[in-house]
Amino acid sequence: MTQDALFQTLLRLGDNTLVLGHRVSEWCGKAPVLEEDIALANTALDFIGQTQMWLGYAAEVEGKGRSADDLAFLRDVWDFRNILMVERPNLDFGHTMMRQFLFDAYHRALLAALSTSSDTRIAEIAAKSVKEATYHLERSAETVIALGDGTEVSHAKMQEALNLLWPYAGEMFEADATDQLMIDAGVLPDPMPLRAEWMEKVSQVMAEATLSIPEDDFAHKGGRSGARHTEHLGHMLTQMQWLQRAYPGANW
Amino acid sequence: MTQDALFQTLLRLGDNTLVLGHRVSEWCGKAPVLEEDIALANTALDFIGQTQMWLGYAAEVEGKGRSADDLAFLRDVWDFRNILMVERPNLDFGHTMMRQFLFDAYHRALLAALSTSSDTRIAEIAAKSVKEATYHLERSAETVIALGDGTEVSHAKMQEALNLLWPYAGEMFEADATDQLMIDAGVLPDPMPLRAEWMEKVSQVMAEATLSIPEDDFAHKGGRSGARHTEHLGHMLTQMQWLQRAYPGANW
Repeated sequence: MTQDALFQTLLRLGDNTLVLGHRVSEWCGKAPVLEEDIALANTALDFIGQTQMWLGYAAEVEGKGRSADDLAFLRDVWDFRNILMVERPNLDFGHTMMRQFLFDAYHRALLAALSTSSDTRIAEIAAKSVKEATYHLERSAETVIALGDGTEVSHAKMQEALNLLWPYAGEMFEADATDQLMIDAGVLPDPMPLRAEWMEKVSQVMAEATLSIPEDDFAHKGGRSGARHTEHLGHMLTQMQWLQRAYPGANW
Repeated sequence: MTQDALFQTLLRLGDNTLVLGHRVSEWCGKAPVLEEDIALANTALDFIGQTQMWLGYAAEVEGKGRSADDLAFLRDVWDFRNILMVERPNLDFGHTMMRQFLFDAYHRALLAALSTSSDTRIAEIAAKSVKEATYHLERSAETVIALGDGTEVSHAKMQEALNLLWPYAGEMFEADATDQLMIDAGVLPDPMPLRAEWMEKVSQVMAEATLSIPEDDFAHKGGRSGARHTEHLGHMLTQMQWLQRAYPGANW
């Protein structure tokens, strides 16, 4: 039972980086300026690297002979455990960077906490990943501030992006029975202090960006439990998984 | 050798209706008004029905035990033989209807000619399909006229759509060695009179629609030969073929 909770937890960690990594990779060759294009491609690669560690460990814990690649490319939409925010379509560059910032602020805090997890494998992966996450956060915070406190047009777009994304933030801090098991075992941190840390960072950056945080606390959910993904995840998977579906077992 | 030319010819006919049928089906639930939504869904269904006949016959001619479904869902992008125009993304409703009109005007003329093909199976399929194509053409011509000769905005959008699509029209009338074999055998009609008939219809409708036909005759090609499809076809196939790729052999 705890083994299954650990497996679910690792899927949640790995699916967040897998799905967001793929979304960010969709910008490759299309970002507004060359430096952003390269930076986004690098961010995507960091996420895919982290995914290999999370899903590789998940596959070991599951013990059914599946690999990280099997989990990434041969699961169907209802078996994904990422939060809904990361499967949202990219929309414009501002929306992509706002999503990135809201996620990075959570991700950095989470990984810092996980680096003292009672599960030593999780602690090791988190300690490796937190350096990348810290750098991601620095970049996305700067971009949100520059565009929020930029022209009238860029300000309006960033405010709209924040309004659109805000209802997807709450799911990062939910705790169901599976999480509670892991929290009690010292594997996962308590989400309440995480949320406070995240909110402090978000408030500070939005103040600098001259953007208003929505007051409504409504939060979509269903991604982490797998109960309800948006239509966008399935469409994304058809493209992400195409090669392994069309040519089963293909490798480099 | 002629058997292979016949197979290629049937793929060209069937892939046009398959790919355009799928594109048109993408409007389902998203068209600007309910009646258009239903009409587009019906058009898509007509195309899929025609596809079953063309690819069903193609599979018989090939004689390798493949079915129409195998040809539709298990070929990869380089084995598709549709013209490039039909794989273009839908863009807005006006662009979709302009593409539809340009194709319908060709398709109706082609099917009318094919209904006297020396290949009796082709003649039968064409005779069945030409009624649907005649109705499609009536509808798309009316819509092009209404939007072209509409508001300033709708006129501008239709002119832009025509300009975008015009370089994809020439491929409908090309004749390579495979076509020439079929023309000589009386299976396919000569494309020159077809083109003249098409141009007459297009000129008449564009005049009523107050739209200007571009003067440049440049034509993209590569779709009918399979030598070069646009990037859009591969993305479309990941979604169209997903179910058979993820669940091989699934059926109703």
